[in-house]
Amino acid sequence: MTKLPETPLLDQVKYPEDLRKLEDRDMPQLAAELRAEMIDAVSQTGGHLGAGLGVVELTIAIHKVFDTPRDRVIFDVGHQCYPHKILTGRRDRIRTLRQEGGLSGFTKRAESEYDPFGAAHSSTSISAGLGMAVAAEMDGSKRNVIAIIGDGAMSGGMAYEALNNAGSLDARLIVILNDNDMSIAQPTGAMSAYLARLASGRTYLGFREIGKKLTAYLGKKVDRAITRAVEHARGYVTGGTLFEELGFYHIGPIDGHSFEHLLPVLRNVRDNGNGPVLIHVVTQKGKGYAPAEAAADKYHGVNRFDVITGAQAKAKPNAPAYTSVFADALIEEARHDEKIVGITAAMPTGTGLDKFSGIFPDRCFDVGIAEQHAVTFAAGLAAEGYKPFVAIYSTFLQRAYDQVVHDVAIQGLPVRFPIDRAGYVGADGPTHAGSYDTTYLATLPGFVVMAAADEAELKHMVRTAAAYDAGPISFRYPRGEGVGVEMPERGEILEIGKGRIVKQGSKVAILSFGTRLADSLAAAEELDAAGLSTTVADARFAKPLDHDLIRQLATTHEVLVTVEEGAVGGFASHVLHYLATEGLLDHGLKVRPLVMPDTFMDQAKPEAMNAMAGLDHKGIVSTVFGALGQKSLNVGAAE
Amino acid sequence: MTKLPETPLLDQVKYPEDLRKLEDRDMPQLAAELRAEMIDAVSQTGGHLGAGLGVVELTIAIHKVFDTPRDRVIFDVGHQCYPHKILTGRRDRIRTLRQEGGLSGFTKRAESEYDPFGAAHSSTSISAGLGMAVAAEMDGSKRNVIAIIGDGAMSGGMAYEALNNAGSLDARLIVILNDNDMSIAQPTGAMSAYLARLASGRTYLGFREIGKKLTAYLGKKVDRAITRAVEHARGYVTGGTLFEELGFYHIGPIDGHSFEHLLPVLRNVRDNGNGPVLIHVVTQKGKGYAPAEAAADKYHGVNRFDVITGAQAKAKPNAPAYTSVFADALIEEARHDEKIVGITAAMPTGTGLDKFSGIFPDRCFDVGIAEQHAVTFAAGLAAEGYKPFVAIYSTFLQRAYDQVVHDVAIQGLPVRFPIDRAGYVGADGPTHAGSYDTTYLATLPGFVVMAAADEAELKHMVRTAAAYDAGPISFRYPRGEGVGVEMPERGEILEIGKGRIVKQGSKVAILSFGTRLADSLAAAEELDAAGLSTTVADARFAKPLDHDLIRQLATTHEVLVTVEEGAVGGFASHVLHYLATEGLLDHGLKVRPLVMPDTFMDQAKPEAMNAMAGLDHKGIVSTVFGALGQKSLNVGAAE
Repeated sequence: MTKLPETPLLDQVKYPEDLRKLEDRDMPQLAAELRAEMIDAVSQTGGHLGAGLGVVELTIAIHKVFDTPRDRVIFDVGHQCYPHKILTGRRDRIRTLRQEGGLSGFTKRAESEYDPFGAAHSSTSISAGLGMAVAAEMDGSKRNVIAIIGDGAMSGGMAYEALNNAGSLDARLIVILNDNDMSIAQPTGAMSAYLARLASGRTYLGFREIGKKLTAYLGKKVDRAITRAVEHARGYVTGGTLFEELGFYHIGPIDGHSFEHLLPVLRNVRDNGNGPVLIHVVTQKGKGYAPAEAAADKYHGVNRFDVITGAQAKAKPNAPAYTSVFADALIEEARHDEKIVGITAAMPTGTGLDKFSGIFPDRCFDVGIAEQHAVTFAAGLAAEGYKPFVAIYSTFLQRAYDQVVHDVAIQGLPVRFPIDRAGYVGADGPTHAGSYDTTYLATLPGFVVMAAADEAELKHMVRTAAAYDAGPISFRYPRGEGVGVEMPERGEILEIGKGRIVKQGSKVAILSFGTRLADSLAAAEELDAAGLSTTVADARFAKPLDHDLIRQLATTHEVLVTVEEGAVGGFASHVLHYLATEGLLDHGLKVRPLVMPDTFMDQAKPEAMNAMAGLDHKGIVSTVFGALGQKSLNVGAAE
Repeated sequence: MTKLPETPLLDQVKYPEDLRKLEDRDMPQLAAELRAEMIDAVSQTGGHLGAGLGVVELTIAIHKVFDTPRDRVIFDVGHQCYPHKILTGRRDRIRTLRQEGGLSGFTKRAESEYDPFGAAHSSTSISAGLGMAVAAEMDGSKRNVIAIIGDGAMSGGMAYEALNNAGSLDARLIVILNDNDMSIAQPTGAMSAYLARLASGRTYLGFREIGKKLTAYLGKKVDRAITRAVEHARGYVTGGTLFEELGFYHIGPIDGHSFEHLLPVLRNVRDNGNGPVLIHVVTQKGKGYAPAEAAADKYHGVNRFDVITGAQAKAKPNAPAYTSVFADALIEEARHDEKIVGITAAMPTGTGLDKFSGIFPDRCFDVGIAEQHAVTFAAGLAAEGYKPFVAIYSTFLQRAYDQVVHDVAIQGLPVRFPIDRAGYVGADGPTHAGSYDTTYLATLPGFVVMAAADEAELKHMVRTAAAYDAGPISFRYPRGEGVGVEMPERGEILEIGKGRIVKQGSKVAILSFGTRLADSLAAAEELDAAGLSTTVADARFAKPLDHDLIRQLATTHEVLVTVEEGAVGGFASHVLHYLATEGLLDHGLKVRPLVMPDTFMDQAKPEAMNAMAGLDHKGIVSTVFGALGQKSLNVGAAE
């Protein structure tokens, strides 16, 4: 570990008000210190590095110019907020980032008044900012609202919905488009190409042009409606930028690493003007840290690393990661079936589809941060006989829920949904936890909903999904490594709606859905040792349920515990519903559903989160004891 | 009833291939006949009139020029598809539109090969079309894919996501922008204003200009990437239309009621060109039927009506509609609390917010067909201390699920969700049924989830939501009329998480969530008469559950039936989960959850749908008998 960087200027800045006391000429030095501090912190914690490095100057400039927290600053996605956190009273905790009990890796309302609107998912900032700007207007307040959004996030339809609404509302909203031509993956989509044309076709505006543009904007104290009517009458139709067409005043592109560009532009926008304005700022992801600048992904998300060399710490894996098992299995199936295609919404690396794309470039589609479109695009392909695998994390699939219902499920189209990051995800916290997918999918008629108990099961499920053509099918699997089971050469086709008994007992039954199977087996061992003969079953399917298996477990055991890494309304609810409807609860079966607790759990290690949730082997064992203890008590009382 | 219109030409057209045998000069006559036939049919069935009337010529022109069904035609939303249905083998059933056992009011894959992709919700057609266009390309097929999308649907972010992706893919997709400057409500948003500028700033292109534009498009046999590189090198940056910026070739605006414009343009696009093209067609909603043209909403959705006068049949209501009770109650609360604001996503009339807007124009926001933005915009307002009521139908709230989770629930922001059209909706069928809201909301930590049992309860819930400021809160209510209960002057503030016993009995308990309460009371009457003393309770809350009430019902009755107009995973699942967790099922309580069956139910009258679902009083009674009958059987066998 190197010693802490020297940061004489930064040491004077605990809050933005301290920063505002410094001179403009001090800003480059402050930026260098802030960058060094951030690199050092992330080298210890891991986290999102490249994004924050790209906005060091922008973050400083915003806090220098605007009266935060009275003026509202909203970071889209929020993973670029580490410099912001350091400048807003959280420097002393910056080395707890993403750790249990520490700072969140994203902006978070509960954490600071300087985070007026939290984030983690993409493309929300303009909507939230517009709400806040309208509120300011209704309050009669002159406070500013600034939304900072990346070019990648601009491919999300929600950002466009917000621009479209803002452009017609005339509220005083400042959107800063942080164009680093590099979201997480390579940029995709026509908007990205358009921004590149803007940035290269125009050279950076000199001060004179900036001034001219600003005057045009600021001089317009006349009512914008009148201005528009005049423009209309002149036959003004095209010729503006896309953002101007949508009703924004558009400034830029300007150099996002130059305080000489940033400060005067922001001050002018602050002091004058009305209506929505978009400032196009060009930055470089990973700026100022050579290993990040040189890396293909600009150190988007990193493990702990060595500051000097940039070398990241990598724990030696005990078993292959689920993501990589999925990718290999999909490649294997795609070799056998040319109708298989892969679709990702801007997460080729996270989902493993980059591997697939490397082998089948013409059969892989990265549609941008556009989950809604991804799902319906897949439905279109399925309608034509293709076999699309739409690989989206559990939490992000929420963004396409209606498309799953309306375009896929109602039409019964065989779209395949590999659902990565199902369950607790650790450092990314509650916004990224995959908690609700089983609940929101298994409620849909005609859906097949699976969960893999281990990495071999995942391989089976990829093949099963490839083979199943009668309707939509999903399979969930968690972040991280498998459990080290022996891997088959190729997956098997599972019988739809059939689970399996993994271990036969007689008194207690544990019915697991997904990767809680390992803890279920560990619990069974303890229970057996305590004289409670325990059956363990792997349900494999939440829908269709294995009725025979459940009936058998329910009628031949005294206690039935279900366990899953998901929220209420999911697997357990379907089991309980079946048991109740069939009258299988009428005779005193002690049934206990174990699900995620009813809370948004802050970041910690996934194992710790499962333990807190009572979903580990200890939680299962104590649930069984509780069920039986309660029984003996009640039997005593009642008989 | 007038006699059927004379339709000599239309009578020759059963399928598009018949249409293609007619001469171009016959098309205006065919259009007149098709229009008359459609007006007559809808006068008998009710349904969407204005939208279909606006696209009569466009629909004919498409089928005349393109080789349907080999060429794929996708109607966005699909409510404008009646002329299409008449021309594609479904004329003999057109007077069964939206009736039980009849034709769907939307496009539907299961109904016809001429409906390659069904719809009902907005803004999906470009995504689906792009999937199909990519499939055609992979197939090496030259078939065309045409997506017809209205200007209103263009405010949905998903449409933009698809444009953005299509513009970078170069697939052969034809998008027809049907610009009628009138979606359901008055047009909103900057895009709408932009289209109006386009349409009025340019006069309709004459044939020469159309030819010139087309030549430019079609001549480009050179690789588009090269073209772009050249444009780039020339410093070409702005000056195109917004659609051109996004990579589309843009033709128009052209007159959508003129075959002289439509036929040559469509033929040229069909026979030549590559890459995505957008044809901007201007039409008039309600065209050709004077009462529709004159109406403010252009007869968007109508009841049965008199063809001569246009007068719509209106059944005399027995009780106020839920929508209108909601609107009045919200107005009442807004008079007491100036922080209350209303938000709608392009459904001011459907949600009743038009009334609210009439009284509080500055406190009501129609954000366009943009549910995602609507919810996060509301979250921004809530973060600033406002009390937003986001009125969105149950089925459309699915489009904003991630915003509900990520921007509202995780941050615990007090956004209010009045959920109209909860439960079966009748003629609009499965795409509009409000089935899943309780499931996907009650699984979220910190949410308060209510359902109104009748119109007076709805009034209480509006006030309760207005008063509740600790986090998100929702209340659902169905389409249609209330039950005629006495209405309070103003709603009461309900205690959060407390239900109520409506009728006390001793052997059987019926726990209702929402408007199934009336059938629950009817069932109780029958059960009492059969000697089974029955308690009826109104849960009011699915979350937080009234634990005391449920424990009391469970421990003092032999049978507990839950009933709700919603899918599995919702209220019943929360009740079962609580009962199981607390060991309240360990002693032989016969619990029976009644929920919507696991199927997408086609259109019928809502009462009929509830009966088919077993959610009416008969279904409840037979469930109770089943539970008790089964018991006596099993008791006999076991003891």
